[in-house]
Amino acid sequence: MQLHSPDPSPPPVQALEWCSSYLRILDQRYLPGSLVWVECRTLSEAAGAIADGVVQTSVAAGLVAAYGMALAARAIGQTDDWSAALEADFALLAAVQPSSAHLEWVLGVLGDRLRRLRGSEANVPELLAEVAVNLHASDQEANRAAGRLAVQVIRRHDRQAKKFLTLGGAGSVIRAAHAAGLVAQVYLCAGDTPGITQLVHWELGQDEVPVAVHAAAAAGQLMKADNVNWVVVGAQRIAANGDVINDIGTYSLAVLAMHHGLRFMVVASSSAFDLALENADELEADDALLQRAGQLALDVTPAELIDVIVTERGVVERPDEAAIAELLSHQRLH
Amino acid sequence: MQLHSPDPSPPPVQALEWCSSYLRILDQRYLPGSLVWVECRTLSEAAGAIADGVVQTSVAAGLVAAYGMALAARAIGQTDDWSAALEADFALLAAVQPSSAHLEWVLGVLGDRLRRLRGSEANVPELLAEVAVNLHASDQEANRAAGRLAVQVIRRHDRQAKKFLTLGGAGSVIRAAHAAGLVAQVYLCAGDTPGITQLVHWELGQDEVPVAVHAAAAAGQLMKADNVNWVVVGAQRIAANGDVINDIGTYSLAVLAMHHGLRFMVVASSSAFDLALENADELEADDALLQRAGQLALDVTPAELIDVIVTERGVVERPDEAAIAELLSHQRLH
Repeated sequence: MQLHSPDPSPPPVQALEWCSSYLRILDQRYLPGSLVWVECRTLSEAAGAIADGVVQTSVAAGLVAAYGMALAARAIGQTDDWSAALEADFALLAAVQPSSAHLEWVLGVLGDRLRRLRGSEANVPELLAEVAVNLHASDQEANRAAGRLAVQVIRRHDRQAKKFLTLGGAGSVIRAAHAAGLVAQVYLCAGDTPGITQLVHWELGQDEVPVAVHAAAAAGQLMKADNVNWVVVGAQRIAANGDVINDIGTYSLAVLAMHHGLRFMVVASSSAFDLALENADELEADDALLQRAGQLALDVTPAELIDVIVTERGVVERPDEAAIAELLSHQRLH
Repeated sequence: MQLHSPDPSPPPVQALEWCSSYLRILDQRYLPGSLVWVECRTLSEAAGAIADGVVQTSVAAGLVAAYGMALAARAIGQTDDWSAALEADFALLAAVQPSSAHLEWVLGVLGDRLRRLRGSEANVPELLAEVAVNLHASDQEANRAAGRLAVQVIRRHDRQAKKFLTLGGAGSVIRAAHAAGLVAQVYLCAGDTPGITQLVHWELGQDEVPVAVHAAAAAGQLMKADNVNWVVVGAQRIAANGDVINDIGTYSLAVLAMHHGLRFMVVASSSAFDLALENADELEADDALLQRAGQLALDVTPAELIDVIVTERGVVERPDEAAIAELLSHQRLH
């Protein structure tokens, strides 16, 4: 993501690094002030890193879970029935962040792979590590792909550098837009998950993106007074109709964006789509599903407030069920 | 405010108490968990209590300033020209919270009184203490009056208990509405000034008001999912046309309230009106005026988003310049 600079630069610090025998994670809780590393050598350390907020984005949580399963398999060493031997480990990870479609998707990928290996002579611990490494590489490529697609969308509306407001959760798009010369200013509104704000702040800082951090409560005033053009957020889960479940505050931003006539972009991995969820009404009806530790931690942004959803597989403008089904029926383009 | 209970109750704890030779303040930074008291025996201790956030509402800051001037006069003991002797102290207090119209108003009242005493033989230190005590009593009576008026407004719309959402800054109205049986639930959204949230949480708890504290970012989701009826906020300053300058997040709440069809009430002392400020455009144009320590700390809510402004002197529905001028031209009714 050093596209804006022709100078040879040191390779960017990796927030998540697999070191063959352990996983090394940049602790999001201490960013951007300090670079503190956490090493995970067991599944329970990996689960703890998710639970304690060492990683806080759903994508990073999914990767840590994948590496965690590889560590768990290594601890077992050998068995005739890997699915059975790892069943409790799958359940443990699924319970750490039950609202994350991405984590569920990663665990599904690993479970499928295990079932297909049944009876083979494969080295399962090494195969699981390979799956995790591939997921990681493909997430990075997906980020780049989503960034490229988002830049096309933004450029269709704006040929000059514009102001962006984000809650975090869409750092790759902001960085790609900046590399393309489309970012005059980023307002990063601190969400309820400070680690995500801090990670994005640190990432944007690495790329020298002009960024100002504000309280989430400042979003309305910034939109009114400062000519913001784009609001860009992530998504934890997206229903078949385009309703977005994301960190609390996303819905308020969407209402404020509409009120001020700004464009509202959701950036997500295509794995965030949950086609089994027709719309978010059932989540609205029982707000326990939106809570963590008794507090509202997620909210629902209705599809009609969203201008565009950007994924690594393509873009959906004015999302609805048909457009989303169409997107997901395509083979990967990249 | 124990109207809902016929039992003899212990007198409520006073958050601010004048003890003849010093001022005793309940430290808002430790509420509602702990009752920690701060004693001020000098003007600089009083100014420090405002600057450090021991008190955080503008009304409390004004009272602490008034008592602080009494303490400053005592330290001087005797002089021929009190206005000159206290000039630096006035300037010091005015600089602690330059955005607060209420603090400015309090200092204006004290300055007037000093000028009228020029040449008299009065005991100025005791007179200033008396002025502070009277301001304090009149603030408490003003709160009760505003509460009574707000209850009339609410009752005109709702005869049954309803759900209220507040940022804090309007505790007296919520408590009066609760005493009148009009409150089913209060959602207290934590603003950027945690001390105010904590003070209101503690005050509502003393009255056994059903209150749930949420992040400010949850306001939109609460309005959408939970049938909130009223949004009630305070005001730091109100322009002649009804534009409200208040803690950051107020404007976002007003937009969200409009989007969800909720009623939006501003509760303020009539001293918060600043008729010299025609509207808030000049504040919008230079957002340094809305900042503290480089961060947006205040925002502007345009009059057209406000359903009603409640003061101790009366109520303005659908505020505009004429209605506000009319309100302020009346003599006090109470």
